Amino acid sequence: MTTSILSLNDIFEARKRIDKYVHRTPVFSSNNLNDIFGSAIFFKCENFQKVGAFKYRGACNAVFSLKNEDAKNGVATHSSGNHAAALALAAKIRGISAHVVMPETSPETKKRAVFSYGAKITYCEPTLLARETTLQEVVNETGARFIHPFDNEKIIAGQGTATVEFLEEKPDLDILIAPIGGGGLMSGTAIAAKGIKKNIEVIGTEPKMADDAFKSFKSGILVPSVNPQTIADGLLTSQSELTFSIIKKNVDDIVTVDEKSIVEAMRLVWERMKIIIEPSSAVPLAALLEKKIQVKNKKVGIIISGGNVDLSRNYF
Amino acid sequence: MTTSILSLNDIFEARKRIDKYVHRTPVFSSNNLNDIFGSAIFFKCENFQKVGAFKYRGACNAVFSLKNEDAKNGVATHSSGNHAAALALAAKIRGISAHVVMPETSPETKKRAVFSYGAKITYCEPTLLARETTLQEVVNETGARFIHPFDNEKIIAGQGTATVEFLEEKPDLDILIAPIGGGGLMSGTAIAAKGIKKNIEVIGTEPKMADDAFKSFKSGILVPSVNPQTIADGLLTSQSELTFSIIKKNVDDIVTVDEKSIVEAMRLVWERMKIIIEPSSAVPLAALLEKKIQVKNKKVGIIISGGNVDLSRNYF
Repeated sequence: MTTSILSLNDIFEARKRIDKYVHRTPVFSSNNLNDIFGSAIFFKCENFQKVGAFKYRGACNAVFSLKNEDAKNGVATHSSGNHAAALALAAKIRGISAHVVMPETSPETKKRAVFSYGAKITYCEPTLLARETTLQEVVNETGARFIHPFDNEKIIAGQGTATVEFLEEKPDLDILIAPIGGGGLMSGTAIAAKGIKKNIEVIGTEPKMADDAFKSFKSGILVPSVNPQTIADGLLTSQSELTFSIIKKNVDDIVTVDEKSIVEAMRLVWERMKIIIEPSSAVPLAALLEKKIQVKNKKVGIIISGGNVDLSRNYF
Repeated sequence: MTTSILSLNDIFEARKRIDKYVHRTPVFSSNNLNDIFGSAIFFKCENFQKVGAFKYRGACNAVFSLKNEDAKNGVATHSSGNHAAALALAAKIRGISAHVVMPETSPETKKRAVFSYGAKITYCEPTLLARETTLQEVVNETGARFIHPFDNEKIIAGQGTATVEFLEEKPDLDILIAPIGGGGLMSGTAIAAKGIKKNIEVIGTEPKMADDAFKSFKSGILVPSVNPQTIADGLLTSQSELTFSIIKKNVDDIVTVDEKSIVEAMRLVWERMKIIIEPSSAVPLAALLEKKIQVKNKKVGIIISGGNVDLSRNYF
């Protein structure tokens, strides 16, 4: 069993390290939504973060933690999502190269985003095996450092900095809710929240159609996702031993939600708050819609993980 | 020729009157957009205003300016858009009734919005004549005060308060740009901007497909819109003598844009800034895309008028 000694202090250090590179994102609220749920809900808007997602915090911390010696050949990852763009931008700002392995089948918009931040892209077949093999080849050839999207303590510590800012601005929160994909955001969030405020309730939320974290949490044994199918495309990944061990220890509960509620929650935020959030970011509010979390008369914090959506698609 | 004696002082008074009822909306900017245009662009986000549009400022000022004697039978308007919702909410907060005449054919979402703010709705045929006749009947029956959406000095003064806040926060603006529909926002914006900062450039923007303000401004004679067809559905209305006279005197120029640029500008804001703006609000940025306004190395203010869109529609 992996055990992590990652602590609040690592997150404070990450915060100092990345503070000048990241946006201090605003906290939004909506009278309209508060009325619906009978509680005071605060949204930490990482959709306004650089590259449109919290992932930039972790990527920045990982990239700027590297010693010059280790950074000189750049960084590498395999990802078709926000982590690749985030790593590319962080590397660009540090002035090192970024190598990204992406399936040929990735959407054009994602290819363009990663490319626009100056990353070198290597295409591969759309299988996990091809991604890992191709990444290994790239690392061997270039000497770049592999930065995993969540199975990496620097990444997790970086993601936790959103919660440090959040609790600075809203120290009264009773509950803090985040979505779980690979568990990087959830791990950083939980360590930061419990470290800063012992009695805060920390809840993870997941689509029923990708409920590996829920099953793992309830059974105590790490269960991988099997063929997950959810509109919340940022939450398809399974946890790692590292994130599972942190979540098991620091998260109070995990609840799951239906696809229909995710779309309904997403629409509610777009319509009432006039901000664009991606489906994965709607999962916590979906849990409120399904009354899976008791929030009546409480102060509720929700981390909006990102705002990268395909605008050509009609979600509603 | 109508001449208005509306002055900056009226806008300051409006501000004092409505300050506790309206949101002080945030000013957003985007490095990404600044890079595209080579200027520093600031967006006053009235899409985050109550009812999702600047219209709430004017409605509040009109409603709270009424003496008790004049307010006791409520207020009335004919509108299928943001003004009706804004007037309904302002009336609700003052504790008086609001009567709204709407075409039966109005979208369900708009009917629901107006109804949810507690207005009494009277439906009519979808013609201007039917709206005016029905409104007159409602006013005769109820004794309610008719509050025109823009041909009303209290409304114009209220809309100008957005610019007072904007210039408090960004006193350095070289140019201020707003869209023109009936001209209420443009009038209030121009009086406030020129009153506070004599040398600021104030530019109006309009869809080419609804270019009555442009034609009127260039010819010096008030020209109504004839069968306007634009995606910017908040800008279909023609100016009144009142707004035309203010705009002629206080606005430096009016430029027009294509429908394609409006959609492109709207997409740019949704995609890069992660905020939802309605098509009418994208018209100023469309003018930058079409290089109709020289903004290079300048500090540019844009008023985002609102964020009420039909999410079932695929704009992109």
